[in-house]
Amino acid sequence: MHLLKMSDLNPSDIEKLIQTAKRFKSNPYDEQHRGFIANLFFEPSTRTKLSFEMAEKRLGYQTIDFSTESSSVQKGESLYDTVKTVEALGVSAIVIRHPKERYYEELEEAVQVPIINGGDGKGEHPSQCLLDLYTIHEEFGDFHGLNIVISGDILHSRVARSNALTLQRLGANVTMSGPSFWQDAELGIPYAPIDEVISKCDVLMLLRIQEERHDLKEDHEDYLTNYGLTQEREQQMKKESIIMHPAPVNRGVEIASTLVECERSRIFAQMNNGVFTRMAILHELVQGGISNESITKKCSII
Amino acid sequence: MHLLKMSDLNPSDIEKLIQTAKRFKSNPYDEQHRGFIANLFFEPSTRTKLSFEMAEKRLGYQTIDFSTESSSVQKGESLYDTVKTVEALGVSAIVIRHPKERYYEELEEAVQVPIINGGDGKGEHPSQCLLDLYTIHEEFGDFHGLNIVISGDILHSRVARSNALTLQRLGANVTMSGPSFWQDAELGIPYAPIDEVISKCDVLMLLRIQEERHDLKEDHEDYLTNYGLTQEREQQMKKESIIMHPAPVNRGVEIASTLVECERSRIFAQMNNGVFTRMAILHELVQGGISNESITKKCSII
Amino acid sequence: MHLLKMSDLNPSDIEKLIQTAKRFKSNPYDEQHRGFIANLFFEPSTRTKLSFEMAEKRLGYQTIDFSTESSSVQKGESLYDTVKTVEALGVSAIVIRHPKERYYEELEEAVQVPIINGGDGKGEHPSQCLLDLYTIHEEFGDFHGLNIVISGDILHSRVARSNALTLQRLGANVTMSGPSFWQDAELGIPYAPIDEVISKCDVLMLLRIQEERHDLKEDHEDYLTNYGLTQEREQQMKKESIIMHPAPVNRGVEIASTLVECERSRIFAQMNNGVFTRMAILHELVQGGISNESITKKCSII
Repeated sequence: MHLLKMSDLNPSDIEKLIQTAKRFKSNPYDEQHRGFIANLFFEPSTRTKLSFEMAEKRLGYQTIDFSTESSSVQKGESLYDTVKTVEALGVSAIVIRHPKERYYEELEEAVQVPIINGGDGKGEHPSQCLLDLYTIHEEFGDFHGLNIVISGDILHSRVARSNALTLQRLGANVTMSGPSFWQDAELGIPYAPIDEVISKCDVLMLLRIQEERHDLKEDHEDYLTNYGLTQEREQQMKKESIIMHPAPVNRGVEIASTLVECERSRIFAQMNNGVFTRMAILHELVQGGISNESITKKCSII
Repeated sequence: MHLLKMSDLNPSDIEKLIQTAKRFKSNPYDEQHRGFIANLFFEPSTRTKLSFEMAEKRLGYQTIDFSTESSSVQKGESLYDTVKTVEALGVSAIVIRHPKERYYEELEEAVQVPIINGGDGKGEHPSQCLLDLYTIHEEFGDFHGLNIVISGDILHSRVARSNALTLQRLGANVTMSGPSFWQDAELGIPYAPIDEVISKCDVLMLLRIQEERHDLKEDHEDYLTNYGLTQEREQQMKKESIIMHPAPVNRGVEIASTLVECERSRIFAQMNNGVFTRMAILHELVQGGISNESITKKCSII
Repeated sequence: MHLLKMSDLNPSDIEKLIQTAKRFKSNPYDEQHRGFIANLFFEPSTRTKLSFEMAEKRLGYQTIDFSTESSSVQKGESLYDTVKTVEALGVSAIVIRHPKERYYEELEEAVQVPIINGGDGKGEHPSQCLLDLYTIHEEFGDFHGLNIVISGDILHSRVARSNALTLQRLGANVTMSGPSFWQDAELGIPYAPIDEVISKCDVLMLLRIQEERHDLKEDHEDYLTNYGLTQEREQQMKKESIIMHPAPVNRGVEIASTLVECERSRIFAQMNNGVFTRMAILHELVQGGISNESITKKCSII
């Protein structure tokens, strides 16, 4: 079984992954696992790649790594052949980040070991979504009735949409915010200006402005003033509410630089949780803890 | 002792390596080994580098890696000084791929730990040759009297010539095929058009057209039709005969894309065998299982 | 506690590190350590990076590596955020090389795990200094009264100044040599032509001409003749005196090529010692063997 998109998981799978991640957070080594995990990153990445690597090694796996800079992809080998090669080498699972949306469609049937999607273009990034869910769950213990605002470049974000739809599935009230030209009307999620929702939300999820993904050059200072988290806005937030961001942060754009490490920020906590979440993903997928039965590849709405 | 070229090994060494690889294939971990292996790749590589890395780690070694992109070679350090540095760090063996043919000549006497040649320009690639031999041996149990056709760019291939000469040494009947302008008359191996030999061969070894190694631009579709393995030709092959290719494959050039994973293809099996073959090489070289006595550096013919 | 510059260490810390390194040299594995060390190299490096990696693995640590080529630094993330991210992932210590002098100033207070400076621009390179000290100590057993000549591009070297000042602190007589335009008058170390000091020194420390760090193009042959170690000069050296160089060596510039591996050269021995020295640094810093009390961050002179 693969983890390619959040709709591969039903709520009980998500609950199970959160509980497993929680167990790993209190006991960060589980070296009973043996074998190799391949990390194939066809796009630059710091935190996702390192986070998976730590997760794998904490589980006792060995890793083999592949980056486009130093590989036969320069000789024009296809993704399919590269992945089949890595499978033939004898790995237990394959983590892939690739710029092409839904790159995994040609691999799903052909590859027998679990594939974990580490990001497909502006498609999805399920391990990021799961670590966000873990962080919210750790804070509030539940998703039902939580007011969650996702703010920023919804259109080009690979976490916004799957986070929004998954959080709705789990019972949260999700609102989008940010510039209107980055709205994604097809999503069917309500939109509101940041100043209308800032004082009510339990979780403010900021998105990175992905300059490398679109041509539009916003004036950054204007962005902070109009849509970002300024110090003034932060002071309107409820006592228990938290700030999240998938990072890397554009300081002074999505968020005032001084707030990145403020008390209600969970930005670095998210990274810490990411390792344990990815341990859970690997553990459950490779050990078959999330069974094929529970998978609803063409599930209801998402 | 080093493994630099196939003529470093006599038939009993080859037999021993095949038997050791076979043992590792049925028991893929042998973590009694301790120490470090350095992988120095001065040319891009996916499968060879990853294959060695997995072999090393399956044996219990730790690895240190070096690629030209991120190293002092940018500061102009010579190969000799880089290798001596890595030796001084305290490694147990060094795997090297380098674009210069016979790069190892200046290292042979100076370096005390085993050097394993991972490819020297258009020279040799002995671990690839040995995994090919392993794959043939696994299939047929012996080399004597086998009809083997090696087809493609003989002139620029670093596996064609050492495979041909070694297989002859081991008693196989070797024929070359492919475009006449890529023949290597000096080799002394008979040549024949693909259509003359396809129905008789036990093993068809296809070679990669190494576009990066020569200027000649063949029309690729013509290549398949004239020299490659089309579906029509595949149907003329004997029931038990197999297809091999060192990969990466140019689909639709050397071989019709649909045949890459056909029943008689051993292309991905070769990659799997490569890990066990390299475990055997490392194990025997570092442990001295292949002794200096058995080495005939200036041996008989090759 | 961090190791950022040699003045972070008092003589008893240095003595302790040398003794610990000596212990590791006679017993090169100490796998009781558990956890992860991050190696963040924002500049190319072969020997320093590989040496740290081996040291970490010999201690039982796992490593995560980061190089500027394949990371989010391309997305414009700051050093501060990258380091805080790596800390959040859960590492036990962080080794950093960065082109900016004193890059660590913004990190010192903010990062709770030990930072080990692997080189800051033309600032310092304390682990190189310590391995040089180890190598001298191994040879002579003491520093008091030793005559040490440091020769070459003092001005642009990140080892020259901290070596000179630390060796003086430890009781050695230090003299600088080399072209007058590379002198560093502020250091307060006496200067002399190479031919005046070559026959008296116990240790000749040659520096690399760092072409990438300044525009001045010396005529290389003239450099060897005027300032470098020719065979003639080597013959004037005392029987027991040794030659050192931080490498990579410019053969035929700082030193005649034939002398790189001569009997009194310790150049490759330094690399070997570097692994054990770095094991000692990691062991003492992470285990707190060098306590905060013993640190004199704003200590006396250096």
